Amino acid sequence: MLDLSLIKFDQNGLIPVVVQDIRTNEVLMLAYMNQESIKLTLETGYMHYFSRSRNKIWKKGETSGNFQKVRSLYVDCDGDAILAIVEQTGVACHTGNKSCFFTNFFGQDKKSEVDILFRLIETINDRKRNKIEGSYTCYLFEKGLDKILKKVGEEATEVVIGAKNESKQEIIYEISDLVYHLSVLLSYFDLDWTEIFKSLEERRK
Amino acid sequence: MLDLSLIKFDQNGLIPVVVQDIRTNEVLMLAYMNQESIKLTLETGYMHYFSRSRNKIWKKGETSGNFQKVRSLYVDCDGDAILAIVEQTGVACHTGNKSCFFTNFFGQDKKSEVDILFRLIETINDRKRNKIEGSYTCYLFEKGLDKILKKVGEEATEVVIGAKNESKQEIIYEISDLVYHLSVLLSYFDLDWTEIFKSLEERRK
Repeated sequence: MLDLSLIKFDQNGLIPVVVQDIRTNEVLMLAYMNQESIKLTLETGYMHYFSRSRNKIWKKGETSGNFQKVRSLYVDCDGDAILAIVEQTGVACHTGNKSCFFTNFFGQDKKSEVDILFRLIETINDRKRNKIEGSYTCYLFEKGLDKILKKVGEEATEVVIGAKNESKQEIIYEISDLVYHLSVLLSYFDLDWTEIFKSLEERRK
Repeated sequence: MLDLSLIKFDQNGLIPVVVQDIRTNEVLMLAYMNQESIKLTLETGYMHYFSRSRNKIWKKGETSGNFQKVRSLYVDCDGDAILAIVEQTGVACHTGNKSCFFTNFFGQDKKSEVDILFRLIETINDRKRNKIEGSYTCYLFEKGLDKILKKVGEEATEVVIGAKNESKQEIIYEISDLVYHLSVLLSYFDLDWTEIFKSLEERRK
């Protein structure tokens, strides 16, 4: 299955591997693999790397329990870098951060636009567990399911009105409002946008 | 502003840089920087790399026009890798592919779950331009705005009914349906999920 001839190892027999989270698309870490760690990864289904400092192969998570299940592997156009798409258990970084790339040294500390949906759900889940005075999200959970559903209906209607006004600004604002209230509904049922994306993916086939 | 002491260059004065698209979170390429290419990147706002094969600094896009505007830079926990978040003009790869990592050698060729929203919009935009017999999306565009908005209202109502039935499966299915029809509406007005994410981000502050 694996054509290792695609892969160009450096003079030390290593190749850099970019590791990305399947759920959020976050870049978790950069590590190195040799030929054997690639084979072990394919055989076991879990990421194995070569440690340049310890000069040996290691299974990610072998001490921390934070394993990485491999979902896809790619090699780049000139064969000297690998991209691994993984399901990360817990966090990737030994510091306790989700990603090793947590030190921002230029620009805004905001890695992407799309991960807002996950950060939104995380905040909403937090509000569900911890009451905060004056929080609109807490108010919705307090009022309960019927209130959340009334808001879903209301915001959908406001999307329709914005569109009939042919106002792009209104459409953007009202769809955002609807997406926020749908996120509250998902959180109410302990669901996540991941389930929606999986469902869209399946129906696309 | 930049504390270069954070960054550990290798014996050749280089550090690997993972380059990621701000819009879709896609990993575009892996390249190398030396100290001067970092300085040029910060001074100009556009990604500069060090080519190991040509042994010189190059500005990404200098021949192709496919520049990368730098949005954020991160260094990893042990200082020996950089993550660059960029706005990519055109494609990143010299082969014409969006990303250099287009050769899938293990697992499904599906890089993430979240990028389904962008792939969905791309397909819908394509259906808007090119009629395909039997395509439901084409049918919606043919019927026009009122039909699309009726469907948005209908799907929102079905979300409410699914939630009142306390059926997680129904909720997932109906929210997916609603998200699809909202995508058609966005496409109708030449909008994209990016605008929704930006709006949610601004209102989160």
